[in-house]
Amino acid sequence: MSISKKEQTLLDKIQEVSLRRGFAYPTGEIYGGLSGTFDYGPLGTLMRHKLINFWREYFVKEENHFEISGAIILPEKVFKASGHVDKFNDPLVQCKKCKSMFRADKVIEDNLNQNTDGLALDELDKIIVKNKLTCPQCQGEFMDAREFNLMLKTEVGSLKGNVSYLRPETAQNIFTSFKRVSHAMRAKLPFGIAQVGKVFRNEISPRQFIIRVREFTQMELEVFFAEEQLNDPPRFEELADEVLPILTREQQDKTEEEPLLVTADDAVKKGILPNAAIAYYLVKEKIFFEEAGIKPELIRFRHMLPKETPHYSGGNFDLEVKLSIGWTEVVGNAFRQQHDLTSHEKASKTKMGIQHIAGNVIPYVVEPSIGVGRTMYCILESCYKETDDRDWTWFQFPSTISPYDVQVCPLMKKDGLEEKALEIFDDLKAEGLEAIFDSSGKIGKRYARSDEIGTPYCVTIDYDTLQDETVTIRDRDSMEQVRIHLDELTEALVLLLSGEYSFTEMDKILKEKNES
Amino acid sequence: MSISKKEQTLLDKIQEVSLRRGFAYPTGEIYGGLSGTFDYGPLGTLMRHKLINFWREYFVKEENHFEISGAIILPEKVFKASGHVDKFNDPLVQCKKCKSMFRADKVIEDNLNQNTDGLALDELDKIIVKNKLTCPQCQGEFMDAREFNLMLKTEVGSLKGNVSYLRPETAQNIFTSFKRVSHAMRAKLPFGIAQVGKVFRNEISPRQFIIRVREFTQMELEVFFAEEQLNDPPRFEELADEVLPILTREQQDKTEEEPLLVTADDAVKKGILPNAAIAYYLVKEKIFFEEAGIKPELIRFRHMLPKETPHYSGGNFDLEVKLSIGWTEVVGNAFRQQHDLTSHEKASKTKMGIQHIAGNVIPYVVEPSIGVGRTMYCILESCYKETDDRDWTWFQFPSTISPYDVQVCPLMKKDGLEEKALEIFDDLKAEGLEAIFDSSGKIGKRYARSDEIGTPYCVTIDYDTLQDETVTIRDRDSMEQVRIHLDELTEALVLLLSGEYSFTEMDKILKEKNES
Repeated sequence: MSISKKEQTLLDKIQEVSLRRGFAYPTGEIYGGLSGTFDYGPLGTLMRHKLINFWREYFVKEENHFEISGAIILPEKVFKASGHVDKFNDPLVQCKKCKSMFRADKVIEDNLNQNTDGLALDELDKIIVKNKLTCPQCQGEFMDAREFNLMLKTEVGSLKGNVSYLRPETAQNIFTSFKRVSHAMRAKLPFGIAQVGKVFRNEISPRQFIIRVREFTQMELEVFFAEEQLNDPPRFEELADEVLPILTREQQDKTEEEPLLVTADDAVKKGILPNAAIAYYLVKEKIFFEEAGIKPELIRFRHMLPKETPHYSGGNFDLEVKLSIGWTEVVGNAFRQQHDLTSHEKASKTKMGIQHIAGNVIPYVVEPSIGVGRTMYCILESCYKETDDRDWTWFQFPSTISPYDVQVCPLMKKDGLEEKALEIFDDLKAEGLEAIFDSSGKIGKRYARSDEIGTPYCVTIDYDTLQDETVTIRDRDSMEQVRIHLDELTEALVLLLSGEYSFTEMDKILKEKNES
Repeated sequence: MSISKKEQTLLDKIQEVSLRRGFAYPTGEIYGGLSGTFDYGPLGTLMRHKLINFWREYFVKEENHFEISGAIILPEKVFKASGHVDKFNDPLVQCKKCKSMFRADKVIEDNLNQNTDGLALDELDKIIVKNKLTCPQCQGEFMDAREFNLMLKTEVGSLKGNVSYLRPETAQNIFTSFKRVSHAMRAKLPFGIAQVGKVFRNEISPRQFIIRVREFTQMELEVFFAEEQLNDPPRFEELADEVLPILTREQQDKTEEEPLLVTADDAVKKGILPNAAIAYYLVKEKIFFEEAGIKPELIRFRHMLPKETPHYSGGNFDLEVKLSIGWTEVVGNAFRQQHDLTSHEKASKTKMGIQHIAGNVIPYVVEPSIGVGRTMYCILESCYKETDDRDWTWFQFPSTISPYDVQVCPLMKKDGLEEKALEIFDDLKAEGLEAIFDSSGKIGKRYARSDEIGTPYCVTIDYDTLQDETVTIRDRDSMEQVRIHLDELTEALVLLLSGEYSFTEMDKILKEKNES
């Protein structure tokens, strides 16, 4: 594989292994697919579950937030109030000749390497005309740029013209049910409402595998604070000394790429971040991404520029990951102030205040919003390995995120080894481990297949197993093996997977034991 | 509450408590909602997670099936091949006067109590005219019935007319990626592919709370068998003696309602069921629903009548639950034979065969498809209690499904009781229990609130706790309490929740211990 592998980009390699091993593949592939739409296969789905459950534990349960699960199709009124009907647009240019369409800002950025954020349509037109930019397909001239709304429409009910939209973010279910949820749960500020779910954006040019797609899953959190709580969020002191990599607006003006390293506490005190509440969530995200397998040096928080930020924002900070295709937004963090609840109060004529101390207040909102597919792609890239010690590629996933925890292999299919291995496989599953059984082909091939999808450990059942009830555990990272009695197998795997012991430590303990 | 409660239907009561306590409420409620669309609140979401995880353990992992997570929007070609574009219709009649629309078959059924399944449009028209049926809104005459396609459409991409559909079932992602998944996973027949996800059907008359809605979640399974495996599915012998309640076609002809009770094995041998593969899944469903809290006597499998069944079907068996609104379909079981893969092979010109013994075969499909929202409603109704021993309503949920496992209550907020209770609350959460903290109001009110949402146990921290590290566990069902040392609390709760001990047994053990 090595020669052709080296000619591929990293994105190509990730995509190839994803398709072949069942992480993700185009939706309706046998019909040519649907641009910007992917299905997650068995491995991608196991990884999604682990990622989402990890997020739920760390961002929802640990914080005593509430999770809801809302509808995808929302009435038009919601998006009129939220501003999406009027303002959720991208600038679109169409070729006069071949009628192909492109994002005007991307045409300029790709050709002139010039940032266009916040420019009006006529300003984009001027740049296109001045630089004689033409259609990448046929070199035809472009028509004037126009606004293209990114929401997908549908008509619900049997009458024509009853327009609804597929939500472009999960947030609006949270804002519109804020009163219902806070009453039902007798919630007191500060508290958060979380949601995981599908969202849809009609991207003009979907691209880059699962990065820029039209249908994706968000893990979103809206945390509600009284104004005076913004600098005193619960448990801030636990994370105040953690270091945040922040790319400030000043650094961006100087076209610097490497972030400032500053503690959460200092970032708030120096006014780099608007409040401790947002600082707290940025630290949590950094820890979350590192534990999910993304190298710390690939993570930065970019302070969005004024022209990238809506007027009501008190500060937006994207978590960006340095991928082979460049720094890529994976999390949007927004200090939305009172904007959303105030807008919905006005449009729906429903009071949105909540009882706090002596009166009713409209809370302030901090919104950390994570893209599931992009996070998965970042993990795939960050954990992808081509090393000299093996002639196959592999993923060095943490067990937090690896599709499987363990692969179970009988050395041979015959002589009762397969039956014994199946028993062990069932036992491990019953203990809650994600296990896969593989009995076909040479054992070396099976280890390679296991490494290729990032399974941390292989358990091998051989002829000794039938004699003395011992098996081997093979470590993906070192390719070392250790022999262990079946009575101790589950506990050993659980300790290894939870990170309480390294494989080297476990190896040492077991060898000492075997010798004594 | 009692008088007004007694005037309400059970559906009204369930809906009222669902809205008030946050199980489910209308989407975009502050804007008047969207007909047939609901959001699940914090309690509904916790219950959904438990239900889906239970299904995943029991129907996917235990069976070594593969789970995928596909896109909601699929290209038109998929639904042309599947037949949905042409045939996924309901008959619709519109009032000539007020333009209101209704399902023609429902108009007839509601007015004449006459079954209309399988009747053609002109046959429905004849019945309407003959019986002088008119618009329920304004008594206007109806126009002729027409076919109304139940799929929701949208246009993806920036060109007009690029029609795609929101999937009306998750199954099509599975069939269209059958080759991809079976290759990636090196799957050998028989094996299953599972999916949990949102689906959309543009119901003409959504109604009955979360029962007949336009957006809902399916837990779907397509199990693929070689022909000769259909009567020899893995592990059938483990369930062969379980009794299935089946309402046969003969019984339906005699308008009987009570099902035949027959073992899975006999049902296959007597030809009541088409094969052992479907019998196996019916038994699993029965066990699953009972463990999820639905009383066995409320469950039956109805053999769908020929006119309710597509031509390619080898037998459809709905799991129906006897609700206050009548027997209601909650699971569709279909023996789809080779229909889907054959249709997609033809339409996509992609070979759909899979290597089996000496050659390539197109497998046979058994499809058990469960509605999440309907299942939740059935559980709510089946577990709902108004009993003489308390003046509040309560849910007798099994812990498999209850939103919370345990509520933690300090007797008072003062004197360090709240702090101690919060410590215990954090410990229980860290042990993986779903816990809720409640410190506001009188303890009796808090127990009532806890019962109302079906939490099996309350742990109360009182002044003795500060002295001797003991707390009480209160049992929801008996309202009895037992005193226990904090060192034993987690283990006791885990044993109670897993059903290894009943509360009475635990009580006895602990009392004996306290006395000795």
